[in-house]
Amino acid sequence: MILENIEKPSDIKKLKRKELDILAREIRDFLIEKISITGGHLASNLGVVELTMAMHISFDLPKDKIIWDVGHQSYTHKILSGRKNAFDNLRKFGGMAGFPKTSESKFDVFNTGHSSTSLSAGLGMAFGRDIKGENYRVISVIGDGALTGGMAYEALNNAAGIKKNFIMVLNDNEMSISKNVGGMNDYLNNIRTAAGYNNLKKRVVNSLERLPYIGKPAINSIRQTKNGIKQILIPGMLFENMGVTYLGPVDGHNISALLKVFDEAKKVEGPVLVHVLTKKGRGYSPAEKQPENFHGIGSFDIASGIPKSGSNKPTYTDVFSKKIVELASKNKDIVAITAAMPEGCGLLVFRDVFPKRFFDVGIAEQHAITSAAGLAATGLVPVVCVYSSFLQRGFDQIVHDVCIQNLHVVFAIDRAGLVGADGETHQGIFDVSFLTCIPNMTLLAPKNARELEDCLEFAINFDGPIAIRYPRGVAYDSLNEFRNKIELGKGEMLFEGDDIALLAIGSMVSTAKNLREKLKIKGLNVSIANARFFKPIDFELVDRLCKKHKFIVTMEENVINGSMGEKVKAYIHENHADVEVLNIALPDGYVEHGDVSLLREKLEIDSNSILKKVLDKYEKIKNER
Amino acid sequence: MILENIEKPSDIKKLKRKELDILAREIRDFLIEKISITGGHLASNLGVVELTMAMHISFDLPKDKIIWDVGHQSYTHKILSGRKNAFDNLRKFGGMAGFPKTSESKFDVFNTGHSSTSLSAGLGMAFGRDIKGENYRVISVIGDGALTGGMAYEALNNAAGIKKNFIMVLNDNEMSISKNVGGMNDYLNNIRTAAGYNNLKKRVVNSLERLPYIGKPAINSIRQTKNGIKQILIPGMLFENMGVTYLGPVDGHNISALLKVFDEAKKVEGPVLVHVLTKKGRGYSPAEKQPENFHGIGSFDIASGIPKSGSNKPTYTDVFSKKIVELASKNKDIVAITAAMPEGCGLLVFRDVFPKRFFDVGIAEQHAITSAAGLAATGLVPVVCVYSSFLQRGFDQIVHDVCIQNLHVVFAIDRAGLVGADGETHQGIFDVSFLTCIPNMTLLAPKNARELEDCLEFAINFDGPIAIRYPRGVAYDSLNEFRNKIELGKGEMLFEGDDIALLAIGSMVSTAKNLREKLKIKGLNVSIANARFFKPIDFELVDRLCKKHKFIVTMEENVINGSMGEKVKAYIHENHADVEVLNIALPDGYVEHGDVSLLREKLEIDSNSILKKVLDKYEKIKNER
Repeated sequence: MILENIEKPSDIKKLKRKELDILAREIRDFLIEKISITGGHLASNLGVVELTMAMHISFDLPKDKIIWDVGHQSYTHKILSGRKNAFDNLRKFGGMAGFPKTSESKFDVFNTGHSSTSLSAGLGMAFGRDIKGENYRVISVIGDGALTGGMAYEALNNAAGIKKNFIMVLNDNEMSISKNVGGMNDYLNNIRTAAGYNNLKKRVVNSLERLPYIGKPAINSIRQTKNGIKQILIPGMLFENMGVTYLGPVDGHNISALLKVFDEAKKVEGPVLVHVLTKKGRGYSPAEKQPENFHGIGSFDIASGIPKSGSNKPTYTDVFSKKIVELASKNKDIVAITAAMPEGCGLLVFRDVFPKRFFDVGIAEQHAITSAAGLAATGLVPVVCVYSSFLQRGFDQIVHDVCIQNLHVVFAIDRAGLVGADGETHQGIFDVSFLTCIPNMTLLAPKNARELEDCLEFAINFDGPIAIRYPRGVAYDSLNEFRNKIELGKGEMLFEGDDIALLAIGSMVSTAKNLREKLKIKGLNVSIANARFFKPIDFELVDRLCKKHKFIVTMEENVINGSMGEKVKAYIHENHADVEVLNIALPDGYVEHGDVSLLREKLEIDSNSILKKVLDKYEKIKNER
Repeated sequence: MILENIEKPSDIKKLKRKELDILAREIRDFLIEKISITGGHLASNLGVVELTMAMHISFDLPKDKIIWDVGHQSYTHKILSGRKNAFDNLRKFGGMAGFPKTSESKFDVFNTGHSSTSLSAGLGMAFGRDIKGENYRVISVIGDGALTGGMAYEALNNAAGIKKNFIMVLNDNEMSISKNVGGMNDYLNNIRTAAGYNNLKKRVVNSLERLPYIGKPAINSIRQTKNGIKQILIPGMLFENMGVTYLGPVDGHNISALLKVFDEAKKVEGPVLVHVLTKKGRGYSPAEKQPENFHGIGSFDIASGIPKSGSNKPTYTDVFSKKIVELASKNKDIVAITAAMPEGCGLLVFRDVFPKRFFDVGIAEQHAITSAAGLAATGLVPVVCVYSSFLQRGFDQIVHDVCIQNLHVVFAIDRAGLVGADGETHQGIFDVSFLTCIPNMTLLAPKNARELEDCLEFAINFDGPIAIRYPRGVAYDSLNEFRNKIELGKGEMLFEGDDIALLAIGSMVSTAKNLREKLKIKGLNVSIANARFFKPIDFELVDRLCKKHKFIVTMEENVINGSMGEKVKAYIHENHADVEVLNIALPDGYVEHGDVSLLREKLEIDSNSILKKVLDKYEKIKNER
């Protein structure tokens, strides 16, 4: 076992060339074994084992700085930088993060999680290095999927300005989570294909011979030939046109080739892009065959690749997935848009059934939203399917392109609230705040699976911008006896009680139900209202609650600043000054990785923690009166 | 006068070819005359007179749809679509907007204002057209400046997916508001240059002759030759590589050439980019010479080009501009970043004095922010200078790249609050809401010019993400006797009174002072506190106010949802239930164009409107007690 001797950073530099291939195999076995138990990102990590090894050999870490785009491919980097023994607690609360974290290791120089940030961050660091007159290398590793994100292009457009070495490693595996899309992908594909030709020389000759004469017709002739041939002439010219030196493509599983190309890259003054071809899931057959299934996964059986645990109960994503197809079957104006998340957002069936009404735009939330506005302007009903934390990328587009014109765009916001193991960058805990400040926006959240279906139907038949937020994971399937018709800005009463009123929304309605049972044991009989709408808030319902109760508890899964609770409390101050309010929401802070139920406890939004707060305040109120 | 006969849409189609050049001249004279009186965007509009005329002739409007990126170049379009007589009230309250507005004319098919949205919107409309089986053309007009914005690239990356006609007109004038930047600009410049060569044919021959033999060395040889020569071989290849047919470049002031290229473009199946070379300010010598001075301007003298009115008093931008240079002279770690706004953000002097510490990244707010995070990671102190409404583009980057890592990035947010004539898209009325929900963020607003200087100095010496918001226009220069040291989360008492307390922040402190004088006439003696920090809010100051006063008025220039007032009211409910609160903020709605002082009245945030509200509530409170 060579991996046994990889304890400290730079241990890999001591290895002989032929030991490296053995180490690569051992690292893969290690990753497969560990992730099969803890879960995590597998396919992306198996793809970059040799690439990471070569970088750790070629560069002088941590003096040199590697920035991992998205960061879900940094496991080998974590192994090689002294964190091998932390894998048993990968993505667990208090354990090692699944993404790079500056707080975790000095080998992690910039936190990542969302896509397409690494070139900007790296370029900033390289410029900073030069201004400070320091001397180290900056290397940004970006996938071809991340290259579909606009901010990567903004950085590329600025890369030419750097005069000293800045290395961009294009980790090209032809995929985001799903198969990659767009003109850039076709372009890279041409390079990939061209690189594979043995008869490259012959083809170039042929293509030049075909030019009838030189001048305009020649240009047309070249234009008309296949892109692949253009690429044989000048591979990477797109990048070179942007002022970036292009090296490659190189086999990303050949360590010698990688070491050689990095030696070359280090000599380049100015920005250089190293085009590396890798295979997602490399070395583990189930992941090679279906890399999208081994993107972010739970524990699985190594031999078969079959997920081990996992409930069979439908998730909110499943519920959405089924309902959108049902609605689209009846309404031919419905179209669906995803930013490279057809699996995660539950659009695989929609894509198969309505291929012409399905748009995967790449990791491009901005374009997803504004093109949806364009689709809406033609009279269609676009449904933008996106995770809460990624919707942050499209804030201006919602303000500027959708809501000013009051266009009927439906946002299906998955993974709203706590998401768990992915940590800070992926928690969907800001959308209530940043959406409710936007004029013309309507935002609602279902209490259970049935209500998600009803919300979606309501949103499709609405007119104007409207968003539905729902959590990650298994859909709540109780309280089905309450299925009041969805009306704009109207909540619903679930339980009438005497002592306290709980005004809960979304995921917190189920918590309110648990809380009610716990309060009953304490001899308190509480009301529960489902607020349902974050915007417009049902203030008539608040009035009703305040007439009967002198203590209202608001409950939601979003940060407190900009929350529903804040607005309800301000309203109650204005209109029912004698009614006490307790706001249950997330604190003003980022939430690290860990099991969601554990996080709820730590953040004190689980029913036991709320019980304690409610009883404390209830006692205090009683004593004061 | 041919322009006299241009009353109705499509009147231009009746003109003879030679009348068109006369009309172009007349439109320019009309624009210069009108804008010299009303103010508005001039240089951008003078640049596209012929282009717009050619499009109105070539296309069948309003059946065909033109989307104007940014939209500050749509004046000729407004003239030709029947709105000539509305120019006397251009950008005035109730008058014609300076940007395309679907509510204004059926010839305006999509609202714009921010940069780089037109390709996404147009692509959405073109896809929508095809899904609905309709038959019209969609044309997006985008500047080369707007092409530096990432979302334009996201759209380009998706354009290849369209099978039917979609026309992108690249209006290439080598500028954003300032001179354009980046690799894409260099690339376009190569095409521009190449297009000018008369000996194009000869150069192609030479460059091919220089190839020693065909194969790898040939590739290297081509790579080593100047980019310009590559472009002679295949102009527009960057776009063609993305799956887009490239036509051009064509002289944007030659109507015949434009008509011809549009005829060609209409025949293309799939996406086509028409590269049009124009000159900003064309036909008006002062604007041709200094187009950046004739971007958005007030009234001016036509003969000299000199602005007519305009106060000599320094604006907040001027104050910032001077102070940042002073601070940077003392602290060599300070660097400044702008997204194509060196003039507007007051960075011209900084750029001249510290060229190596100045970054203009193009219209690329996302990259601006994340590269600032990279710069901060190296120990520098980046100051991101940006308008409030454009900062919306970088929301996720603030959440994800700056604030999770708690990096010391300073945001200098100009044009916060109402901006006036630019209307809905440019009002800076959401930043308080979207910034205060972000953990680790600090947000403050100065009451006057001196305090902006102090805030900036405080921010530079702070550690962590910090933003200062300040308004457009002349800096408030009173209340200079109050210059309390800035401390984190601490406001200041300005006036002690008895009856009512005003808790104002930023621009509203001056309004509070006026209000205080008006209330004095009514026999009321009020306190004024300057809150100064939107986050963290100075709740100790709120406590102090509540101990003395039973009526607190919060005053700020941001929408009510997510405002300081909402939070203060919620806090007071919790801690001082008997204290009444009146929130003065902007309503939950977009604010149209018009003079700021008029807008304040309409929105009831001027001192007279607030006076009325305060007195009403004061009476109500008195009667209730």
